[in-house]
Amino acid sequence: MYKLKRQDKRSSARTGLLKTAHGTVATPAFVAVATRATVKALEPQALTKIGVQIVIANSYHLHLRPGEETIAALGGLHRFSGWEGPTMTDSGGFQVFSLGAGKEHGVGKVASIFPDEEPRPPTKREKQGKSLVKLSEEGAYFRSIINGSEHFFSPEGVIELERKLGADIIFVLDECTSPLHDYTYTKGAMERTHRWAKRAFNAFEQPVDEEAYPNRDQILYGIVQGGAYEDLRRESATVIGGMDFGGFAIGGSLGRSKEEMHQVLDWTIPLLPEEKARHLLGIGEIEDIFAAVRRGIDTFDCAAPTRIARNGTVFFKDAPRHRINLRNSRFRDDPQPIDETCNCFTCCHHSRAYLRHLCLAGEFSFYRLATIHNLHFLVRLMQDIRAAIESDAFDELEAEWCAPA
Amino acid sequence: MYKLKRQDKRSSARTGLLKTAHGTVATPAFVAVATRATVKALEPQALTKIGVQIVIANSYHLHLRPGEETIAALGGLHRFSGWEGPTMTDSGGFQVFSLGAGKEHGVGKVASIFPDEEPRPPTKREKQGKSLVKLSEEGAYFRSIINGSEHFFSPEGVIELERKLGADIIFVLDECTSPLHDYTYTKGAMERTHRWAKRAFNAFEQPVDEEAYPNRDQILYGIVQGGAYEDLRRESATVIGGMDFGGFAIGGSLGRSKEEMHQVLDWTIPLLPEEKARHLLGIGEIEDIFAAVRRGIDTFDCAAPTRIARNGTVFFKDAPRHRINLRNSRFRDDPQPIDETCNCFTCCHHSRAYLRHLCLAGEFSFYRLATIHNLHFLVRLMQDIRAAIESDAFDELEAEWCAPA
Repeated sequence: MYKLKRQDKRSSARTGLLKTAHGTVATPAFVAVATRATVKALEPQALTKIGVQIVIANSYHLHLRPGEETIAALGGLHRFSGWEGPTMTDSGGFQVFSLGAGKEHGVGKVASIFPDEEPRPPTKREKQGKSLVKLSEEGAYFRSIINGSEHFFSPEGVIELERKLGADIIFVLDECTSPLHDYTYTKGAMERTHRWAKRAFNAFEQPVDEEAYPNRDQILYGIVQGGAYEDLRRESATVIGGMDFGGFAIGGSLGRSKEEMHQVLDWTIPLLPEEKARHLLGIGEIEDIFAAVRRGIDTFDCAAPTRIARNGTVFFKDAPRHRINLRNSRFRDDPQPIDETCNCFTCCHHSRAYLRHLCLAGEFSFYRLATIHNLHFLVRLMQDIRAAIESDAFDELEAEWCAPA
Repeated sequence: MYKLKRQDKRSSARTGLLKTAHGTVATPAFVAVATRATVKALEPQALTKIGVQIVIANSYHLHLRPGEETIAALGGLHRFSGWEGPTMTDSGGFQVFSLGAGKEHGVGKVASIFPDEEPRPPTKREKQGKSLVKLSEEGAYFRSIINGSEHFFSPEGVIELERKLGADIIFVLDECTSPLHDYTYTKGAMERTHRWAKRAFNAFEQPVDEEAYPNRDQILYGIVQGGAYEDLRRESATVIGGMDFGGFAIGGSLGRSKEEMHQVLDWTIPLLPEEKARHLLGIGEIEDIFAAVRRGIDTFDCAAPTRIARNGTVFFKDAPRHRINLRNSRFRDDPQPIDETCNCFTCCHHSRAYLRHLCLAGEFSFYRLATIHNLHFLVRLMQDIRAAIESDAFDELEAEWCAPA
């Protein structure tokens, strides 16, 4: 459960402790994406060395493969993967979007920035122009991206699925709408999401045979929807925030631009109970992190830092968008580490020239080394952000990192 | 330089110490393949933890990318890659085969077993049915597999290239023939290889400005050729073995079957000077290792252990061919490590079920974990082999591992 440590005086930024059955997370914190029970290119033990506090796996993907029964039989996600720290599972609600309207509309949660999911070849159905998702009041019918098989996700079924996976923090099934959905659609979807939230909450409250599940101390988060429409977001924050969830997530759509995303947070967060944690789904650019923390976000996840790493893009403070691409020929003979001030494994051991070589050669070892740096960079940034909040210097830290608006 | 420790009484197996500028290798030893200055999917520091003693990189591939000038400017292969232990570089002679006749004939060095190189898409020239290699008395003209550009490798040029790379043990340029080449072709190629060996030896003996190169203490190995023809192998072993190389390699072709490979070793090794090390290029099946060590081989390299790992195949003593494939559905709920008696990182931390999941999902983290196990397995096997030779128990160890002929 969440414990507030310090509330910034000049903004809604705050530090706190998020206690879970597998440890306590100092917030604000970045949640590393481990979709299929592994952060891509990293073994779980490396996360501990990097200082990653918490990861998020995906219920839809793990349901398809290897299946929640297999994971439960092996003792739940923690024992299955070897990651013993705090863990979240997303509910499949994001896939309602990413395999459905997001695909159809060709957009991410924030329409103007890159897609949130890994690129993958289209399935047979997608080639025929058919969606992989069908929604009803009951729940979501999904087609598997692996073999086309049909899977039904209901709010209650997802609670059962997440119980079997055994993460510490689990999310209710929601409908993540597209930034290009209109007001009427978004309102209808939000209202259904609210009905689903109540069903999930009730299912979660039902007594169960705890022995049958790997984790007895799960925390259920509600998800606020409502697109980029002010009245809908306020309504959703009031309805979802009024329920006794263990914490709250702000779901997408987050609008057509970063400015709209900031508005969504401004409308939503003040209506959520102060004593509960707030998670922002799918955000990871440095400036977005500051914007989200400033508005009172405690945790956020994003696949981008690990995905861009595999493409050669690594975080570096003093560069445009805080990133450099190691494929650039100017690094060919560069004996320096990515960042001289960084003490990650990669920066301690390898030069830009060597990393560039591995990247251009497509060596798997590159993916791991670049991922280590990017995660370490975010871990350190979040430490700095927490320290700044604790010492009333968040504004100054943000000014140091972000160009003036 | 090589120092014999113990000669087995019942076979030609022997233990020894191979001293290099970057440390001493206890032999017989497996040489891990690091074609492009990295063992695939492993950072160099992991090799030390596994107990890998020595690696082999490839001059052809490193010449194409990033280029020997870049590596030299960064202090040579050791400093460039972060692997500070003993290192070999192959000469490009294997690519004469793998990009030329081996491709044309569709075979590996031993015609009956799998190809020695990584699968890769064909280049434009290859699609047109044209070879990427052209040989002359002067040397080998190569087309780049990356961009089709032309590169000339002469015996003297390869010495210069390998000096710039700075490995501890370097090989002369040779022509690795195909198992399907006839006697006349093989004889002509062998004779040219002998002329090239002399040119390379002379180039290596020329005084150079040592300051200009990263490694002042390189050891040059000659390579015995002659295909699977007894008189040619004996002639080549006599000619090459009679030159003052620092060590000797037995090059392919190694025949059409394992039996022919054993014969090649039987014909060759007795004619090589006892006080010099002997390397076998490109062999890595467990039974082949015993067969080679029994015949007096000190070091051998093979890409197969790391390549099969990435496909889900991991070494396991009590299984056919000492391997199991983790894709097999019988491992779906298997909580055991790959091998309970193995203390590699992977076996200490992960179940077969989790590894199978990662493998089927195509997760990069799987490649690393499986590679660690396979290399560790070979490192331990070689330790056992050395201990067995030291205690006059090599026959017994071989009988324990290999089915009776």
